[in-house]
Amino acid sequence: MNFEPIDAALVPRFAGVPSFMRLPIITDPALVDVALVGVPFDGGTTNRPGARHGPREIRNQSSLIRRINAGGVCPYDHLRAADLGDAPVNPIDVADSLAKIEGFFKSIGAAGAIPIAAGGDHLITLPILRALATTRIGLVHFDAHSDTNDKYFGENLYTHGTPFRRAVEEGLLDPRRCVQIAIRGSYYHPADFDFALNAGFRIFTMDEVMDRGIETVMAETSEIIGGEPVYVSFDIDSLDPSCAPGTGTPEIGGLTAREALRAIRLLSGKNIIGADVVEVAPPFDPSGLTALTGATMMFELLCAIAAGRR
Amino acid sequence: MNFEPIDAALVPRFAGVPSFMRLPIITDPALVDVALVGVPFDGGTTNRPGARHGPREIRNQSSLIRRINAGGVCPYDHLRAADLGDAPVNPIDVADSLAKIEGFFKSIGAAGAIPIAAGGDHLITLPILRALATTRIGLVHFDAHSDTNDKYFGENLYTHGTPFRRAVEEGLLDPRRCVQIAIRGSYYHPADFDFALNAGFRIFTMDEVMDRGIETVMAETSEIIGGEPVYVSFDIDSLDPSCAPGTGTPEIGGLTAREALRAIRLLSGKNIIGADVVEVAPPFDPSGLTALTGATMMFELLCAIAAGRR
Amino acid sequence: MNFEPIDAALVPRFAGVPSFMRLPIITDPALVDVALVGVPFDGGTTNRPGARHGPREIRNQSSLIRRINAGGVCPYDHLRAADLGDAPVNPIDVADSLAKIEGFFKSIGAAGAIPIAAGGDHLITLPILRALATTRIGLVHFDAHSDTNDKYFGENLYTHGTPFRRAVEEGLLDPRRCVQIAIRGSYYHPADFDFALNAGFRIFTMDEVMDRGIETVMAETSEIIGGEPVYVSFDIDSLDPSCAPGTGTPEIGGLTAREALRAIRLLSGKNIIGADVVEVAPPFDPSGLTALTGATMMFELLCAIAAGRR
Amino acid sequence: MNFEPIDAALVPRFAGVPSFMRLPIITDPALVDVALVGVPFDGGTTNRPGARHGPREIRNQSSLIRRINAGGVCPYDHLRAADLGDAPVNPIDVADSLAKIEGFFKSIGAAGAIPIAAGGDHLITLPILRALATTRIGLVHFDAHSDTNDKYFGENLYTHGTPFRRAVEEGLLDPRRCVQIAIRGSYYHPADFDFALNAGFRIFTMDEVMDRGIETVMAETSEIIGGEPVYVSFDIDSLDPSCAPGTGTPEIGGLTAREALRAIRLLSGKNIIGADVVEVAPPFDPSGLTALTGATMMFELLCAIAAGRR
Amino acid sequence: MNFEPIDAALVPRFAGVPSFMRLPIITDPALVDVALVGVPFDGGTTNRPGARHGPREIRNQSSLIRRINAGGVCPYDHLRAADLGDAPVNPIDVADSLAKIEGFFKSIGAAGAIPIAAGGDHLITLPILRALATTRIGLVHFDAHSDTNDKYFGENLYTHGTPFRRAVEEGLLDPRRCVQIAIRGSYYHPADFDFALNAGFRIFTMDEVMDRGIETVMAETSEIIGGEPVYVSFDIDSLDPSCAPGTGTPEIGGLTAREALRAIRLLSGKNIIGADVVEVAPPFDPSGLTALTGATMMFELLCAIAAGRR
Amino acid sequence: MNFEPIDAALVPRFAGVPSFMRLPIITDPALVDVALVGVPFDGGTTNRPGARHGPREIRNQSSLIRRINAGGVCPYDHLRAADLGDAPVNPIDVADSLAKIEGFFKSIGAAGAIPIAAGGDHLITLPILRALATTRIGLVHFDAHSDTNDKYFGENLYTHGTPFRRAVEEGLLDPRRCVQIAIRGSYYHPADFDFALNAGFRIFTMDEVMDRGIETVMAETSEIIGGEPVYVSFDIDSLDPSCAPGTGTPEIGGLTAREALRAIRLLSGKNIIGADVVEVAPPFDPSGLTALTGATMMFELLCAIAAGRR
Repeated sequence: MNFEPIDAALVPRFAGVPSFMRLPIITDPALVDVALVGVPFDGGTTNRPGARHGPREIRNQSSLIRRINAGGVCPYDHLRAADLGDAPVNPIDVADSLAKIEGFFKSIGAAGAIPIAAGGDHLITLPILRALATTRIGLVHFDAHSDTNDKYFGENLYTHGTPFRRAVEEGLLDPRRCVQIAIRGSYYHPADFDFALNAGFRIFTMDEVMDRGIETVMAETSEIIGGEPVYVSFDIDSLDPSCAPGTGTPEIGGLTAREALRAIRLLSGKNIIGADVVEVAPPFDPSGLTALTGATMMFELLCAIAAGRR
Repeated sequence: MNFEPIDAALVPRFAGVPSFMRLPIITDPALVDVALVGVPFDGGTTNRPGARHGPREIRNQSSLIRRINAGGVCPYDHLRAADLGDAPVNPIDVADSLAKIEGFFKSIGAAGAIPIAAGGDHLITLPILRALATTRIGLVHFDAHSDTNDKYFGENLYTHGTPFRRAVEEGLLDPRRCVQIAIRGSYYHPADFDFALNAGFRIFTMDEVMDRGIETVMAETSEIIGGEPVYVSFDIDSLDPSCAPGTGTPEIGGLTAREALRAIRLLSGKNIIGADVVEVAPPFDPSGLTALTGATMMFELLCAIAAGRR
Repeated sequence: MNFEPIDAALVPRFAGVPSFMRLPIITDPALVDVALVGVPFDGGTTNRPGARHGPREIRNQSSLIRRINAGGVCPYDHLRAADLGDAPVNPIDVADSLAKIEGFFKSIGAAGAIPIAAGGDHLITLPILRALATTRIGLVHFDAHSDTNDKYFGENLYTHGTPFRRAVEEGLLDPRRCVQIAIRGSYYHPADFDFALNAGFRIFTMDEVMDRGIETVMAETSEIIGGEPVYVSFDIDSLDPSCAPGTGTPEIGGLTAREALRAIRLLSGKNIIGADVVEVAPPFDPSGLTALTGATMMFELLCAIAAGRR
Repeated sequence: MNFEPIDAALVPRFAGVPSFMRLPIITDPALVDVALVGVPFDGGTTNRPGARHGPREIRNQSSLIRRINAGGVCPYDHLRAADLGDAPVNPIDVADSLAKIEGFFKSIGAAGAIPIAAGGDHLITLPILRALATTRIGLVHFDAHSDTNDKYFGENLYTHGTPFRRAVEEGLLDPRRCVQIAIRGSYYHPADFDFALNAGFRIFTMDEVMDRGIETVMAETSEIIGGEPVYVSFDIDSLDPSCAPGTGTPEIGGLTAREALRAIRLLSGKNIIGADVVEVAPPFDPSGLTALTGATMMFELLCAIAAGRR
Repeated sequence: MNFEPIDAALVPRFAGVPSFMRLPIITDPALVDVALVGVPFDGGTTNRPGARHGPREIRNQSSLIRRINAGGVCPYDHLRAADLGDAPVNPIDVADSLAKIEGFFKSIGAAGAIPIAAGGDHLITLPILRALATTRIGLVHFDAHSDTNDKYFGENLYTHGTPFRRAVEEGLLDPRRCVQIAIRGSYYHPADFDFALNAGFRIFTMDEVMDRGIETVMAETSEIIGGEPVYVSFDIDSLDPSCAPGTGTPEIGGLTAREALRAIRLLSGKNIIGADVVEVAPPFDPSGLTALTGATMMFELLCAIAAGRR
Repeated sequence: MNFEPIDAALVPRFAGVPSFMRLPIITDPALVDVALVGVPFDGGTTNRPGARHGPREIRNQSSLIRRINAGGVCPYDHLRAADLGDAPVNPIDVADSLAKIEGFFKSIGAAGAIPIAAGGDHLITLPILRALATTRIGLVHFDAHSDTNDKYFGENLYTHGTPFRRAVEEGLLDPRRCVQIAIRGSYYHPADFDFALNAGFRIFTMDEVMDRGIETVMAETSEIIGGEPVYVSFDIDSLDPSCAPGTGTPEIGGLTAREALRAIRLLSGKNIIGADVVEVAPPFDPSGLTALTGATMMFELLCAIAAGRR
């Protein structure tokens, strides 16, 4: 099988059934090094839903992406990648969905493939981590929000605001190798970041990114995560809503697309064992820009993984 | 307290915090005859979510509605109506939401007020019926779909495709006084309507509406429901999507707005003990027309109830 | 000068500066029989503004219209028509605008040309009538609303809800030859139609249109207006908002486009001395359909005038 | 292989790569009775392009369609159908595209499958007819326009306004068995319909549809086409733009969705050897309704073909 | 009364009638330190109207804002704030509106509350200044335009392009303590800035902001305004239209949201006696981003006022 | 004739037929120094069409632009400029269009006027260069893509991805005086830039712009192009899609509007013999921002040309 995008000089980019990056659609993860996967679930969303439609629209917009990134990396020269379809989900049952998603990613991990997931809301990261984290792993987390809340409506432990707290509690993450970047926006209580900070996370707020520059932030990030396994979780709302209006919880004053591209490229060569791009919500994205940005971030993650294999 | 809409000749219609029909916002249902209520819940939605945003946008568009309908009925001359706010919901917990909604409507019913609810998806009708149906009641149900499915994903009993089956099973409805109007669109299995038909529902498909006319259909409906208590549930997707594109499960070939207005007016004088307008999904409604239509349907239901008191 | 639309087989319809019907843009009304004119004024709007942008977008969409209507009438075979540009207006001064508009239409009338105006809101009809009505004239008025209110905010006599009352008071209209069609929607007070009815207007509500059919309504209209001079005012909100969502005060349950086309054609041969299409509000018209409909109505009015000259 | 739509009770309708009707995506037409095919080409468009994006968005919206139509026909009980992908096209070369499309449909026809194509603009019908018409065949053509123009810009024979003239000239159609339905809108020259009428086409204008009813029109159509092979071409602009705004050349006053559904169902049992749904232009379709309507029309055509095999 | 936003962990953010920041809606300004107020008036707009719809949509989007800003300020710990509803306006009478708005803000000022207004177009600032400026006050004015024009259409003194000239002429402002930031875009005459500069305003063009940085600009601003009373007027078009497309007079090349957030925070501790956010025009804001940005600016202004009270 | 924009204090900016910058529409290029021209052609587009609608919408949005740019240049004080209408094109024939466009620009060049063209897609630059390049000229090319591809679909030489390769091959450009700025985004083959680089183009990638700053890049550009004739081609996709979403091939991470404004102004005084702004695609531009940006770029190019004549 030829793990290359369909040639746009033979089949126009608007033609055909859209797969991630126009790659082959397959079902056996053992055939690939990297598995591009959709997770169409937004049952953890506490405000504006719609991220369940993210995978389909990200696939659609990914037709605009070619073979080599602006940094000169052609991932398809270094690894085999394909579209593995969507993880199973149950739109009206959170617990069932968490189990289904975990199972799906376990099979990917067991096959030795590295998944790059397209959400879905941020709760999907939890079952992915459960599937992949055979040991405590590091985390590079781009987001406007820390997503380390505890409970919602008193008793609910599993929402898109809680995945990283749960992941720490469950021993999936090594907090001293966890970094959060672009945190900003308003919050509820002075203690909202205590859990993350007390656990040992390094939080780079947008103010720090603005003052020190993304290159410095990423250099420090690189030191923190080191060469051990790390997961990269990219919430599209880490970007400024001028770049990504189509998301459930936009916060003004975020990363530019230029900064985000730089940041991902500066992760090249790291020991990335999985990644996701979440919270793209097409119903709030009239121009399609958010889905295009999400697709490009997936491609850059693919390039960063490939760059380590050159 | 003056249960009248704010005077548009004193306060322009675009001004002020929008309440249903620009009526007062109150909390005590004992003060009114009819309670206009939002139920911002779409946790039963199996495809495109967004109806949770319905109440807010229906309120917004209801500013366009004046005091007297085209049939000459001024409901405020005959009854007291107000905006009672939104029922409590839990966006990530179906069971908790069902309980909360039921409790809220029980308090309305206990106060002697008739609720007209703005959904939310169609699952909200079930807890409303649980709250109101002290005896088996009749039903006039406008919808593209019968919503009498059994289970979803094997085990899930509570979705927006199942409320009327559950209501029959729970003894809330008198099936011989249940009517479904505008049913159409594709379905899954030949037996999909068996439950409703075997229970005794009268189903008027769109084909029958087209062939016999809405006046005839409503006359027959009137006979079936008689003078006993009846609940009116208006799914916005009963309308043709040219009139109501902003809904989760549109089906082409539905009612015109003219037919729907006629139909509701022909329920005037019936013993309506509650009503709802559901499945308005603003993220899919770029022109706002669907929410305006939903608001107008709520107003016409209010007029139909008032007409019985003249 | 060649008073023909630009040939779409030589210049594509999307090319060039858009004029009404792709006709020449001229400044001297004495050169034409019919003057197509924009009146970009919405200073009489009490709710959602935007109709000031109507003329430009109607011109834009009118590029889709060809030479001969579906009834077989080619107006350019029977009369000379051109785009006379926009009437002068002052966006922040109602009185100044009324004077400017009246002056502009007086010069058109003095030149012997029949104007067809693209609004703007419905207040523009008043200064047009002042300019054209050298004697009391008849009226065919398509609208969801009667627009015969008296005052607004206590003292304001001139809004888009009052033009026809003012026109009667000023002796511009012969009320016994005034017809209103498609009236519907909610209203404020039981007496809201008293002025029009007492003056002698014939009001065809939408209910009557539905029950008797548009052909019957127009036949009766034809008898009422007779062969004397008549003005045709077409408010785009006479149409159902499924056909015309982009308007400031939509009311569901209106005319279909098919009925409106029929209605205008049935005015062929009448003594039309002027006409307008008003209340197209492009900011509320994401698909452009409302402006296309407005442009088509202008073309059909042109054909109706031309048909009388065959 | 199981030629059934993916079960929405196992995989939600928003999940997965969208194929037509959620059917399997295959490449060998010999495996199916009916081949659903995209033709993403709009190089024949003389005004507003965008129909090249039609197949992808029609596939997307077709996820809303279930197994059995409202007339009770489950096509999958009677025939095998699948998504055969998109025909090859060259977006900047009309002649090359015509050749490529013809070749693709020849291979489908040679395999014995009946194609239902999703355009693309109306020019795609010509190469499909070239591929399928081994003898002169009949035609049922729903459209606002006759599409029997001769040349464009002096010399160009192949645009979306000329396919049926070319098809007659090339001996692909039997003009006495050709029917055009819903023709309306303005046109350029009095002789614009001469070619079609002189050739022997029966044209049902919208006025005739309105006056005589769609059932009568279809009964007469049925007589004209008889039991011999017939091709059905459904231009989405045959519908009123309230139902289908997203098209390149909208004309107000068209068919309702209800009429269109009736019309297609009344073709059940006819000897349909191929069909298409063309001119869905997603860039002009902000609500997605046009693509949903196009998908539904494809499904109804599938049911009409299946109904003949019951 | 509890002057806190509704708890989003009890009532979801999409639920309920939207008030500014989900604060209580009250009518007595004496109960609060800061009054959040809408001024739904755009009668001073000379080009694209729609800002009258600003307050309602800003309230709607403000549901996304939590209790503490990214700078760590929780305004509700330091002052009482509430939604005081909308100022009265007359949509068709500029003079009447100016009087009504002034009266409303006088009552707020008399009660000792600091208003933060949501416009409405920029003309609303004039009556607010009339109400608040018991002495000549300073001004920090973010805008693409200087808004110090003299007359419009020859005689009209009051438009959204003139408020600050009128305010100087009326002795409301101390020009030596007036600063304008982000001025850019094209202008009409070389003398367009003479009035402001001659009066003593300090104008920071966008070019100066780009060259010297927003921190430097704000430091200099701080020196100019000193510790005396100052009014802050934030025109949303000071932002780049990538951040705020929904406004009547967009000018490319403006502030980023990050710069604007910094700028407002650097006003913390200043003697702010009132503020506004104007020119949010929802009809031109398909993604809702502009209203969200406007709401966030109001919150940051609230925080800046609160920070001075810590 | 008065080559000045219509005075917005006499005719509101939303009024009248829109011409570029509200300048007179004329047909004789000999009357002007600079000819603003539309080229409504997108037949070279290989992915998302729609740029054919660019000229009309750019004209529409250009009504927002006044007389003097933020740099203090009033072009109308230094040169005569007017709207020369649209170049002739043939929407279904690339070769015919190339010939027609070349002829049109030859007549402009022969009259001694400098054209500033509004595209259309980037293929239009080739016939413009053919018309203007009487000798090998320099090039300043802003774009996300190099547009120096060779063939498409095997044999097609003329698409929007090839104009600059063809121009070099045809001897129209002096490659050593050719500069490309903002190049980024993914590409197909490692050799994709070889042609341009081997020919001698200087390519400034976005990474270089970010690292060195736009001022430095433009200073180096100025040296490269020197004082000899140069053509400026501004592809709107050189901008970040947050500033310009409405284009056929968006690439995230581009220029800000501020950088683009600076860049054009830094070309003041250069020997510009022609310019264009291409790839504005209104169907993908729901807020109109892209067309406004395109119009502003045209105005800044006009100012840069005028600045050289002060």
